[in-house]
Amino acid sequence: MTSIRKRSKKAGLAPGTLIHMGRDKAGATRVDMVFYDETHLEKHPVGTLDQCLIKKGAPGVTWVNVEGLSDLEVLRHFGSCYGIHPLVLEDILATDQRPKAADYGEYLYVVLKMIALDEESAEIKSEQVSLVLGRNYLISFQEGLEGDVFEQVRARLANEKARLRAMGPDLLLHALLDVIVDHYFLVLEQLADRIEDIEDELIDNPTTATVQAIYGLKRQLLFLHKVFWPLREVVSSLQRRDSQLIQDTTVIYLRDLYDHTVQVLDTLETLREMLSGMLDIYLSSVSNRLNEVMKVLTIIATIFMPLSFIAGWYGMNFKAMPELDWPYGYPAVFVLCLTIAGGMLVYFKKKRWL
Amino acid sequence: MTSIRKRSKKAGLAPGTLIHMGRDKAGATRVDMVFYDETHLEKHPVGTLDQCLIKKGAPGVTWVNVEGLSDLEVLRHFGSCYGIHPLVLEDILATDQRPKAADYGEYLYVVLKMIALDEESAEIKSEQVSLVLGRNYLISFQEGLEGDVFEQVRARLANEKARLRAMGPDLLLHALLDVIVDHYFLVLEQLADRIEDIEDELIDNPTTATVQAIYGLKRQLLFLHKVFWPLREVVSSLQRRDSQLIQDTTVIYLRDLYDHTVQVLDTLETLREMLSGMLDIYLSSVSNRLNEVMKVLTIIATIFMPLSFIAGWYGMNFKAMPELDWPYGYPAVFVLCLTIAGGMLVYFKKKRWL
Amino acid sequence: MTSIRKRSKKAGLAPGTLIHMGRDKAGATRVDMVFYDETHLEKHPVGTLDQCLIKKGAPGVTWVNVEGLSDLEVLRHFGSCYGIHPLVLEDILATDQRPKAADYGEYLYVVLKMIALDEESAEIKSEQVSLVLGRNYLISFQEGLEGDVFEQVRARLANEKARLRAMGPDLLLHALLDVIVDHYFLVLEQLADRIEDIEDELIDNPTTATVQAIYGLKRQLLFLHKVFWPLREVVSSLQRRDSQLIQDTTVIYLRDLYDHTVQVLDTLETLREMLSGMLDIYLSSVSNRLNEVMKVLTIIATIFMPLSFIAGWYGMNFKAMPELDWPYGYPAVFVLCLTIAGGMLVYFKKKRWL
Amino acid sequence: MTSIRKRSKKAGLAPGTLIHMGRDKAGATRVDMVFYDETHLEKHPVGTLDQCLIKKGAPGVTWVNVEGLSDLEVLRHFGSCYGIHPLVLEDILATDQRPKAADYGEYLYVVLKMIALDEESAEIKSEQVSLVLGRNYLISFQEGLEGDVFEQVRARLANEKARLRAMGPDLLLHALLDVIVDHYFLVLEQLADRIEDIEDELIDNPTTATVQAIYGLKRQLLFLHKVFWPLREVVSSLQRRDSQLIQDTTVIYLRDLYDHTVQVLDTLETLREMLSGMLDIYLSSVSNRLNEVMKVLTIIATIFMPLSFIAGWYGMNFKAMPELDWPYGYPAVFVLCLTIAGGMLVYFKKKRWL
Amino acid sequence: MTSIRKRSKKAGLAPGTLIHMGRDKAGATRVDMVFYDETHLEKHPVGTLDQCLIKKGAPGVTWVNVEGLSDLEVLRHFGSCYGIHPLVLEDILATDQRPKAADYGEYLYVVLKMIALDEESAEIKSEQVSLVLGRNYLISFQEGLEGDVFEQVRARLANEKARLRAMGPDLLLHALLDVIVDHYFLVLEQLADRIEDIEDELIDNPTTATVQAIYGLKRQLLFLHKVFWPLREVVSSLQRRDSQLIQDTTVIYLRDLYDHTVQVLDTLETLREMLSGMLDIYLSSVSNRLNEVMKVLTIIATIFMPLSFIAGWYGMNFKAMPELDWPYGYPAVFVLCLTIAGGMLVYFKKKRWL
Repeated sequence: MTSIRKRSKKAGLAPGTLIHMGRDKAGATRVDMVFYDETHLEKHPVGTLDQCLIKKGAPGVTWVNVEGLSDLEVLRHFGSCYGIHPLVLEDILATDQRPKAADYGEYLYVVLKMIALDEESAEIKSEQVSLVLGRNYLISFQEGLEGDVFEQVRARLANEKARLRAMGPDLLLHALLDVIVDHYFLVLEQLADRIEDIEDELIDNPTTATVQAIYGLKRQLLFLHKVFWPLREVVSSLQRRDSQLIQDTTVIYLRDLYDHTVQVLDTLETLREMLSGMLDIYLSSVSNRLNEVMKVLTIIATIFMPLSFIAGWYGMNFKAMPELDWPYGYPAVFVLCLTIAGGMLVYFKKKRWL
Repeated sequence: MTSIRKRSKKAGLAPGTLIHMGRDKAGATRVDMVFYDETHLEKHPVGTLDQCLIKKGAPGVTWVNVEGLSDLEVLRHFGSCYGIHPLVLEDILATDQRPKAADYGEYLYVVLKMIALDEESAEIKSEQVSLVLGRNYLISFQEGLEGDVFEQVRARLANEKARLRAMGPDLLLHALLDVIVDHYFLVLEQLADRIEDIEDELIDNPTTATVQAIYGLKRQLLFLHKVFWPLREVVSSLQRRDSQLIQDTTVIYLRDLYDHTVQVLDTLETLREMLSGMLDIYLSSVSNRLNEVMKVLTIIATIFMPLSFIAGWYGMNFKAMPELDWPYGYPAVFVLCLTIAGGMLVYFKKKRWL
Repeated sequence: MTSIRKRSKKAGLAPGTLIHMGRDKAGATRVDMVFYDETHLEKHPVGTLDQCLIKKGAPGVTWVNVEGLSDLEVLRHFGSCYGIHPLVLEDILATDQRPKAADYGEYLYVVLKMIALDEESAEIKSEQVSLVLGRNYLISFQEGLEGDVFEQVRARLANEKARLRAMGPDLLLHALLDVIVDHYFLVLEQLADRIEDIEDELIDNPTTATVQAIYGLKRQLLFLHKVFWPLREVVSSLQRRDSQLIQDTTVIYLRDLYDHTVQVLDTLETLREMLSGMLDIYLSSVSNRLNEVMKVLTIIATIFMPLSFIAGWYGMNFKAMPELDWPYGYPAVFVLCLTIAGGMLVYFKKKRWL
Repeated sequence: MTSIRKRSKKAGLAPGTLIHMGRDKAGATRVDMVFYDETHLEKHPVGTLDQCLIKKGAPGVTWVNVEGLSDLEVLRHFGSCYGIHPLVLEDILATDQRPKAADYGEYLYVVLKMIALDEESAEIKSEQVSLVLGRNYLISFQEGLEGDVFEQVRARLANEKARLRAMGPDLLLHALLDVIVDHYFLVLEQLADRIEDIEDELIDNPTTATVQAIYGLKRQLLFLHKVFWPLREVVSSLQRRDSQLIQDTTVIYLRDLYDHTVQVLDTLETLREMLSGMLDIYLSSVSNRLNEVMKVLTIIATIFMPLSFIAGWYGMNFKAMPELDWPYGYPAVFVLCLTIAGGMLVYFKKKRWL
Repeated sequence: MTSIRKRSKKAGLAPGTLIHMGRDKAGATRVDMVFYDETHLEKHPVGTLDQCLIKKGAPGVTWVNVEGLSDLEVLRHFGSCYGIHPLVLEDILATDQRPKAADYGEYLYVVLKMIALDEESAEIKSEQVSLVLGRNYLISFQEGLEGDVFEQVRARLANEKARLRAMGPDLLLHALLDVIVDHYFLVLEQLADRIEDIEDELIDNPTTATVQAIYGLKRQLLFLHKVFWPLREVVSSLQRRDSQLIQDTTVIYLRDLYDHTVQVLDTLETLREMLSGMLDIYLSSVSNRLNEVMKVLTIIATIFMPLSFIAGWYGMNFKAMPELDWPYGYPAVFVLCLTIAGGMLVYFKKKRWL
């Protein structure tokens, strides 16, 4: 629900007004920078932002990573250095953006959600990641809530002499997107485990808590679908894009990434249909148990009501009840009751209620 | 339902016949006018409409706002001054229009709904807003029911030296649309709050009133979907439009606005799916409670029916019932009853009914 | 269901064979004719059809209206005079046509359904209307069952010096279509009233009759959807058509008409979703009432079964039942019964069953 | 289900291998031939197939009809005489083809299903019909199970001097398709009758047999939809086709046929929605009757349980029960019981359970 | 669920890193090779891979089949010999690929799933098959789990002098795809048999196990749909492809194959709708049986509760109960009880509960 909350803060402001709408304003904004080409690799944190970090047209690739969005000055700096449009800066800060890719000629703006599953609360946490791809640079903006997911990419940049180092910032863009999409697989796997647990519970001992757990998962999958569906479109548009910022050699990697996103959506869809099936099984098992309960009640009532009536009958105080005086009256009633009870049991057996 | 009502008033009239179909004919029609360019800003109400307010081709932007549609003369004035087609004038008056944008070459006609949530009745009120964008003017028509939503835009025009003042009436059009779309966010937020309240109620103490509240909300969201879906199309068409009335620099703002409308629809969809899930939870909890009730009944009946039968049995008045004379007959029956009751309880325990 | 019936009459006949498939063969076929241009207006019924009524290329507009389709000679006359294809004549007679528009170069053939709601039986009556638009004429064919819906258009032709008179038969086509679409609004309004009545009934006292009424309305809306959906396509194709028979000045009116058809479909959709919601409310209220009934039963049984057992217990005829002889035995049992009953009530209170 | 069965017979064979997969291999293969042009008409059965029946480019139209597909030699003959591709021959024999049309340049191959409703078993029987349209010939292949549906076309060819005789084999193709589509109308009509019967049953006395009948019909309509939907596509593609084998004058007839197919689909859809509605009515009436049953039970129990308790109470054998000795004790208890029963009845009346 | 599991192993690795993700790493990798042209056919297993097996541009067709993917060296060999892109090699190893076809200019990469139904566990086993089509070669990669499905194709290559031998590797590609699609038919047939068994069970004796079986089948069909739907797209794209690797003569075979895939999807859809219908029948039969049970209970209770009350009434110990002393009191009560019971039976008969 949180995503519904935020937007109204800005209602009525001029577009382009910079307001940070993230949850955690506390953390400081950290900027670090990696410069690499085939032969060199430099990494260092960035302290002051008094001059532009990247020169236009300089060789090699510069990757600037910004964690934490509370310091609006940092954003303004990037805005003025690289000619980023105020609306883009606004979008970077507005952490409830729908994933999208927009080509501004000089640079390409991609915004998407990174997700993780909180182990304890079993809730899905999401964080907005904005990527600005220029001709020789890539700037990534993270909300800075959930640890650094890009560490794996940094490791690959350091170790490997191969492709990522030899090519432009567009392949770096692919690498970052790839890491993020892989995280969706991880979360879906954890959800699949929980779905299997609930499935076992459903057969052993279904309760209302089971239904609520199913709905909780349904809502999480719905949320994932909402954030992932446009991400698929983003990757699809990148792969098709004739943007000059994306080289032909990179397109093949983006196509591969696109296949991954389709697989994520397939998995999502499978999990959703499994949950729907589970709800139907739950409902049918509830109505089955109702049937069982009612059968027990009916069998008991059908056997004992006639018997009770017979016992009540011979408890009447009429003066003239000849049976009461018969010597075999009592055993005869006993046999009668046994016959009735036995007949009922045979009847229920035939009706398959027993 | 009100929107279904109105149309039949006009059945059979020639198209272009001007009839006001709004709810509130009482309020007078107020016209006011803002003229601005980068250096000047003039605002004043307009008393008499004896001559055309805006000159063709004059520099600067003129914004004429009309509140209240009861005075048909005002409309005819605008019709004859700016060459607005009679069908457009008819649409402005017919306050049950579906949101749409139509390019008439000389001017662009946009009609849409503004909404607000009545605090007390919790009903959604909607008001039709028509916008006519010319080369150097923008005329806005409001039904004048719900206060002036455009005050925020007037404030921005006054304070800010920046973009809105420096550019043409197409950016003013964007500003007005933006304010209206933001109001949808506000209303959705309030509805989301009410949905959360109902959700708590659903778990604590669900009643038929809860179901009716869910259906009330469902219908409101349905209504919002019906009025907002075409609005999204309107914004989408404006953003793509090669209309000469919309400048390239404005398109980027309209694209941003389009992203907002997609987000509104996403939120709407999420709320609708939440409500569907709540109905399912309600139904499954009702059938669960039925199960519980039936279990209690069955347990009681299954324990007491055999016991009552035994008590009735020894209440029979047969002469010859040897048990009645046994010294330990009474305690034996007591033990028998305890055994039956205990056995039943063990049976129900095993069946997990207790 | 009637529309399913008719087609098989023709199975196996050569296409183009003229057979009237309407319901009412009794009524005679009436033909009348209106000739008009900006200055003149002539109206008269047509007695004999021995020569062609309209000359090719003559100035002014001729509108021939045919009511009743039982006289096949009349149709053959029009076929031979204006070169109307036998398949079109067949379609005019086959009164179960799906609404469609077909351009035959020399003329444009439009077929659609006019509807009305029978006040007494609350059933929707429909009548097929065929329109043949030529360069300077329009021929309209009605089944002639339900009164003359085109009277309004005749009145406009008579009174008004304005547009309709000054322009070609394509605007007359628009006028006739407009009247027909307006009738859909009227019928939908009446259905909306009935839906609101049923809604009140649903809350006050829902019965199986309510469900059947809901399904009756559902089926009517389904029928309307089936006949209106292709009509929307017809209007859409007319509005987009580059047919030389439709002038540019008329297109703007057709676009307006198209907006109306979209509104009719919106309203239809809203009514259908309201009915679906009502069914869900009905079902949830039925299961709620079942719950209530079961609670009453369970409460009664749970209180009186133990009490009855106690009373039965002390009705046993054992010789040795010490309690029977105690002086306070009877009041003690009385207190015991009160305690049990009270305890049960407290228990049900706590379970919110009371 | 039969259509699912057949395909696996061929798994692993080379494509183009001729195997007959029909149900009835017994019937002999009969070939007959009609030659016609505007002036002549010849008909005769064909005994031996030692030479090619039709000469390329000969004037007039030759229609060869093959009934029964068990004789593979016949097919090979047509394959070699007219250059029909082995895959087409394979398709003609494989009687589980999806309706389709394929243009092979020299000839056009159309395959579709003809249906009929077995009067006794109320099952839909289907038979595959393959049509090969050449420049001056048409070859039709029927499975030969269900009588000859093309008799009507032969009659038209004989009697009528008009269109069919004067034109090419493409109009003959239309005639055959038209007859087949008309048969769908006939079957739908019969199904509609049965649906109405079941509807009456549903209101009078719904049983589980009713539900099974509804599902049987649902499955039949599903089957019809599956075979008719691609048939619609076939006709649509023929009508749009720029195949040189179909002349412009024929296209108008095919368009008319296409309208028929759309109507068949509309009718199918209507019947399906009627069945869905009937199921909902059935379910709601079942749960209503459950409610009724439970009300009767609850009323009986609520009245007689307290009364039985009172009777049991005064059947206790306590020594000291003062009421038993009161002279008006018995009538007082009688009045008490009447009061309780009356009070309950009033309560149920107020709750509208009676 | 297994397909959800695998992907996360690779999270964070550089794309193109070769890791085998199949289930069975144990089996050795076997490579064998068939060379054929119209006159020759050579077959032999391949022991060492020290040099490239196929020369570019050599005449004839070479088919290399690789079974088992555990030996990464083999893949690297094919990668370097035929210039296969690292991402393709990665896809071949990643056995959770979505079926797809990708044209890399020099070669065409097709990946799909082969399925089989395990007789004992009734589970669907799937195996990934990758096909690389070059100008004069085809390399097929199987996981090597489930026996060799291509034996049939080898047999056809050996025996037949006809088409397959005379044409290029693209027809071999078709032959392999055809065999795989035929296997889907086989599996669907087996599932159809099981569905019919369950259908009989549903009518005879439905239990919760029946519901679980239905859901098991539903999930299997869902799985088949997920893997087959993209396969259909693959075949569709091959058939439309203007790839130079596919000759015009082959396209007609691919179109035939495409028809088969559409039929598989039709069958799948039919089976899914049958299962949905079965669930509805199950639920309606469960609620019917509940109704029956409740009727029995209500009839018993309604007859015996009043009777028991009467018996209890005359078991009261009031001193003054005149009826008890009447000589015909006892028979009168007997008659009263018979009358009540009879009246109730008549009432239930009239209500059709009996």
